[in-house]
Amino acid sequence: MSIITPVILSGGSGTRLWPASRAAFPKQLLRFIGDRTLLQATLDRLSPGPDGLFGPAAILTNVAHAAETRLQIAGFDPQPVLILEPFGRNTAACAAVAAIWAIGRGDPEGLVLLAPSDHHIPDPLPFRRAAAAAVDAARSGRLVTIGIKPAHPETGYGYIRMGGPLGEIFEAAEFVEKPDLETAKAYLADGRYYWNGGYFLFRADRMLEEMARLQPDILQAARAALAAAASSPGTIALDAAAFEACPSDSIDYAIMEKTDRIAMAPLDTAWNDLGSWAAIWEASQKDASGNALFGDVLVLDANDCLVRTDGPQVTVIETRDLVVIVERGAVLVAPKDKVQKVKAIVEALRRAGRQDLI
Amino acid sequence: MSIITPVILSGGSGTRLWPASRAAFPKQLLRFIGDRTLLQATLDRLSPGPDGLFGPAAILTNVAHAAETRLQIAGFDPQPVLILEPFGRNTAACAAVAAIWAIGRGDPEGLVLLAPSDHHIPDPLPFRRAAAAAVDAARSGRLVTIGIKPAHPETGYGYIRMGGPLGEIFEAAEFVEKPDLETAKAYLADGRYYWNGGYFLFRADRMLEEMARLQPDILQAARAALAAAASSPGTIALDAAAFEACPSDSIDYAIMEKTDRIAMAPLDTAWNDLGSWAAIWEASQKDASGNALFGDVLVLDANDCLVRTDGPQVTVIETRDLVVIVERGAVLVAPKDKVQKVKAIVEALRRAGRQDLI
Repeated sequence: MSIITPVILSGGSGTRLWPASRAAFPKQLLRFIGDRTLLQATLDRLSPGPDGLFGPAAILTNVAHAAETRLQIAGFDPQPVLILEPFGRNTAACAAVAAIWAIGRGDPEGLVLLAPSDHHIPDPLPFRRAAAAAVDAARSGRLVTIGIKPAHPETGYGYIRMGGPLGEIFEAAEFVEKPDLETAKAYLADGRYYWNGGYFLFRADRMLEEMARLQPDILQAARAALAAAASSPGTIALDAAAFEACPSDSIDYAIMEKTDRIAMAPLDTAWNDLGSWAAIWEASQKDASGNALFGDVLVLDANDCLVRTDGPQVTVIETRDLVVIVERGAVLVAPKDKVQKVKAIVEALRRAGRQDLI
Repeated sequence: MSIITPVILSGGSGTRLWPASRAAFPKQLLRFIGDRTLLQATLDRLSPGPDGLFGPAAILTNVAHAAETRLQIAGFDPQPVLILEPFGRNTAACAAVAAIWAIGRGDPEGLVLLAPSDHHIPDPLPFRRAAAAAVDAARSGRLVTIGIKPAHPETGYGYIRMGGPLGEIFEAAEFVEKPDLETAKAYLADGRYYWNGGYFLFRADRMLEEMARLQPDILQAARAALAAAASSPGTIALDAAAFEACPSDSIDYAIMEKTDRIAMAPLDTAWNDLGSWAAIWEASQKDASGNALFGDVLVLDANDCLVRTDGPQVTVIETRDLVVIVERGAVLVAPKDKVQKVKAIVEALRRAGRQDLI
């Protein structure tokens, strides 16, 4: 029998990779590196494998993305189960739904790994080793997070401070908020601070104990949404009326920062959350001039650019550190260090009623 | 009776405004400023008008552009005559064809104005006044060029040095080649140097005299191409076999620099040959941030940019002096001061066999 049931969080609708990502095609359903979508690459990484570490997965996703998700998972064996949300209620609700669903399958002490669907991890092995190392602590009742060894003083992530050893892994001394740059540099120098990548391994019954203690409203709404769910083979559609009552909170705030039976499995590997076009450039293969080019692209004396097109030919002349994205009938041109403003663009398009573009 | 017959040179197939301009859609058949194509704006400028200065025009164009040209002139009354070239033989051949054709209409002493079809002149009146001022000198047998008062030390044009007064206009002391920047600055300071914009006014019989004396081969080939032309109402298609024998030379080299009965009518007006995307930006209306935006464009903190799209939405974030052109399924991104490299791009696409893009 497999050891861990992966529950993949595929509910994101990020706007930072516009114009590739759209309401109907969120980031996790798109290809950025290689020929697999991020969701497919996540399923690959969490495949059963010869070590029997992971069992059949569930995917928590918005009902609006069910059809595209089914297409993308058609080739996987075993088939992941789809748990469809009528709308997002953040990750604490996902943890509750995942735990209740796992227990319903008959193994209350079974382990669940909550895992984001939209990260890039070139080598799956260190990740699998980190998860395997966390199994004993999770079985003993710890809520275990996988902490990612920081590669730079990032201000966009929360951090976990590593505590003393705990078998193969470590105590998690504390969860800390996104730091300013000074603090991030200090964390990097300190060596005990790891990025919180949003991976959580736990025994299903333990998560429900903590939910009952700390977030009874979330637990109750999740139970009701699953109890009234419309099910068909391979698909569970949460009941909208019941789920609507669920408070929206992240698992970090709702549980991890409030409980003391936590642990951290360190992961030292190339990891990229592909959180912006600059991150996509970082993670991409580049030519000798530092350009990452995808599609029908011609560059002349350009350096360190990211150029992607899904059809129209694109020519870029003598620029540096520029991002040019041509996707789904829209074109984005921005300096690599200004791509965080894409969020504001999507907001402006929304205000302008440009549903055709968002 | 009208005084001047305009013969509009519409044979260009410039590549400097790629990806808007293509083999099938040369610059003069496109809209850059306002809602008229450059050819239409040229015909507007040379319309008969209340002063009766200009008679019905002829348009010299490549046979490949006949259909699009006919569409664009459909609204003009009187209808211009189309003289179709099977291939280009440069402007000396055009001058010969224009003069022979004009004489064939029954008025050997009639005046012909050779005029490019792809310049931007916002105000037609100074141009018409310059042409009117040149009429007496042209009637007296001078080959008159319209010299454009330089607005900056341009190195991309030939110049004409103004001589002494000649009635309402001036002697043309000499035609000089494209200067280097030092020389161009000296010309500008000198005040007697005018840009050679390629406008020539002459009596048809005088042009043929000069042709017979200086370029008998061009004259003979032009005569033969017109004599064997296939004519239909409003259209004269030059005979390809005869025209093929015509030497290819510019009217400047072939005639104007070799004859001494020349004159220059000065023209002091806003004039732009739209010879690059930077020139298009110069000539365009701009917003308060210096951006010239055409089509479905959104800019955020951008300055002095030119952005054009014929369909796809384009967003430009925080850049300066950038050109972004999205036309006919291709995208160009280049700094405004590097747009001359577009020529090299078109050449590279040609070598790569990308007929779909050129």
